[in-house]
Amino acid sequence: MKGNVIVGQSGGPTAVINASLAGVINAAQKNGAGKIYGMHYGIEGFLNEDIIDISDYITCASDLSLLKRTPSAFLGSCRYKLPPIEGNEALYDRMFAIMEKYNIEYFLYIGGNDSMDTIKMLSDYAALKDKPQKFMGVPKTIDNDLPLTDHTPGYGSAAKYIATAMKEIIRDNESFGASKPIVCIVEIMGRHAGWLTAAAALSKGPDCSGPDLIYLPEVPFDLDVFMEKVKQLAEKKRSVVIAVSEGVRLADGRFVCELGNASDYVDAFGHRQLSGCASFLANKVTEATGLKSRAIEFSTLQRCATHLASRVDIDEATNVGYVACEAAMQGHTGMMIIIQVVSREPYLVSYNKYDIHEIANVERKVPRDWITNDGTYVSEKYLEYARPLIIGTILPYYAGGLPRHLTLDNKSR
Amino acid sequence: MKGNVIVGQSGGPTAVINASLAGVINAAQKNGAGKIYGMHYGIEGFLNEDIIDISDYITCASDLSLLKRTPSAFLGSCRYKLPPIEGNEALYDRMFAIMEKYNIEYFLYIGGNDSMDTIKMLSDYAALKDKPQKFMGVPKTIDNDLPLTDHTPGYGSAAKYIATAMKEIIRDNESFGASKPIVCIVEIMGRHAGWLTAAAALSKGPDCSGPDLIYLPEVPFDLDVFMEKVKQLAEKKRSVVIAVSEGVRLADGRFVCELGNASDYVDAFGHRQLSGCASFLANKVTEATGLKSRAIEFSTLQRCATHLASRVDIDEATNVGYVACEAAMQGHTGMMIIIQVVSREPYLVSYNKYDIHEIANVERKVPRDWITNDGTYVSEKYLEYARPLIIGTILPYYAGGLPRHLTLDNKSR
Repeated sequence: MKGNVIVGQSGGPTAVINASLAGVINAAQKNGAGKIYGMHYGIEGFLNEDIIDISDYITCASDLSLLKRTPSAFLGSCRYKLPPIEGNEALYDRMFAIMEKYNIEYFLYIGGNDSMDTIKMLSDYAALKDKPQKFMGVPKTIDNDLPLTDHTPGYGSAAKYIATAMKEIIRDNESFGASKPIVCIVEIMGRHAGWLTAAAALSKGPDCSGPDLIYLPEVPFDLDVFMEKVKQLAEKKRSVVIAVSEGVRLADGRFVCELGNASDYVDAFGHRQLSGCASFLANKVTEATGLKSRAIEFSTLQRCATHLASRVDIDEATNVGYVACEAAMQGHTGMMIIIQVVSREPYLVSYNKYDIHEIANVERKVPRDWITNDGTYVSEKYLEYARPLIIGTILPYYAGGLPRHLTLDNKSR
Repeated sequence: MKGNVIVGQSGGPTAVINASLAGVINAAQKNGAGKIYGMHYGIEGFLNEDIIDISDYITCASDLSLLKRTPSAFLGSCRYKLPPIEGNEALYDRMFAIMEKYNIEYFLYIGGNDSMDTIKMLSDYAALKDKPQKFMGVPKTIDNDLPLTDHTPGYGSAAKYIATAMKEIIRDNESFGASKPIVCIVEIMGRHAGWLTAAAALSKGPDCSGPDLIYLPEVPFDLDVFMEKVKQLAEKKRSVVIAVSEGVRLADGRFVCELGNASDYVDAFGHRQLSGCASFLANKVTEATGLKSRAIEFSTLQRCATHLASRVDIDEATNVGYVACEAAMQGHTGMMIIIQVVSREPYLVSYNKYDIHEIANVERKVPRDWITNDGTYVSEKYLEYARPLIIGTILPYYAGGLPRHLTLDNKSR
């Protein structure tokens, strides 16, 4: 029997973050781990010794299957950045004391940039103090902004949700417009990188015209040019649908969503109410053209719609969790698992380990040549990249007409 | 060979409005109709003689199956209310002239309240002028506010979407909150009737706590009591999720969503910018408590998410279309098909005709005794009513990872 494993989930949830957890659990069991612990609410819970024994909740393969179909972080998540080692040794000593208390040898953390930073700090500290514990990072983020890995688990399912919802919204918007065009502006997550917004382009095909314009934060936004383009479209089309990242900015660096609050309007407490980017632009369109407009925000739906998860994404998320845990149990530490695409058609990937120091705190954006010259669409290069990631479905387990989930306080167990 | 059929779709689309169209087409074919015409953009298109021959687009059973899986109005929709007959006889004469030109004997209209009014006016005019054409209404609305029918096609799928998304949002919201509670307010459609918002309660079950509070427009909203309740919940719970109808009003009749604009802030054109009810309430919560809050609007997603349609709803929508067309071809006119529930468990329904005069322009609300005394939840009576309506799934046809749709300008045909 090997030592114990602990696994935590961190940052914004994804539709498949629990598939990675299922992969970790499966690998721990297959490789003869002792106990498998979970951090309740990530590293923040760990620091409070809020630790659960996963075998109290997951006992069989069917639990693991249900776990893969459950959105959001089963163990609970947190947004907590470890401070630098220097000057905070007491904190790090405490964490290692907790690991020793629970006989934890393998420490897995599923998350994005900040979480990989956690793995880096802990493995650095272990090296510094000659500690035996192994630390491995499992990539996860809908934002797809981690470097070195071809893409991140979580992105494919978010992209599938965005493309599906976009198709449905375009159908809906096209149903009206006999007399006057209707403009619909859809706001998509991604403050700094446009990967999620780019996925709107996947909706385009023989049965869907796709959005008319796509604006990513990688290209400066010009409000006048935007208004001119909308007017031109409205002269030709009954339905105009535009995808816009929440993070689009003017050339001077201001977020477009801040412009809506450029007036002196503040609420009773002196706060400026931030309206969304899409609702600001929709209002502008109506003001300038008199056309009916609508703003839609996908909000957290794009990261929690596990009922529409991509099969490729679920499988890859499971595999990165599995490979990370297995690597830790083979003695590797201070690394993150990356996905490398061997071939895009047929789609084949391999899973590899990469030094965590090369990954933590680096943010990857959509390459400029994957965006059209005028900055209002993505190119075929993006589509070739993204198409394989949204393939396949994993059917929910339905009960009473609704997808069933596995939860820590599931009363039905 | 009987005469020709024409069918139109009207009002806000639903996830299953095309299933009703498929039912009409199927019945017309089975009952030996001549040509089957479609009104392009409803009665508004009909008035412009914008009429299509459906056989140009739908030629086989697999087309009908794909049609049922296509959101929004395949034929295009409109919001157009016919004027009174008196004083507008020329308009009515023109409509009947178009019917005669196309040898149309059977006129089917799929829609909500206003559309049933169209059927009433046309059948009244036919009676007045001794015209032979038959007019039948096919009920459709996510709002579920038509009288006499137990429920309306479209409602079950919207309810299933709302309950599913609510479960996923609650999971998402519960993943954080280790240190401080997070308040999430979800805005649901339904300006006058709370049927859609009530569906949020369906998310509650052994694997989901359901929303903490549900506010329908049927009960006056008290902002102070609301804030007090949120504060109490935030003292006990890490995650607080609230469902609120876009149509909630204060006792004095003002919409809550208007309060956010009570300041003098108007845009450059003198318009007041209306912010949503949820975003107004979320801002209020953060102001008063300092807690993080988030507003989510389901917007049109709740009416176009055919990928998540209810099987019961799809079948019933198909059947009301079928029965309506068959009844018209048997000589009935001036009626709407209603769904009567013979038994809720096991769930059994019958389809019946009802005089359109009893239906048009009557709006049905959630009964007061289906809402809790304090007006912050729905009772078991509602749940018993709604549970059968969201059962079963109809799988999309996937291509390239995305649901396939049938459209009038489908380039792949």
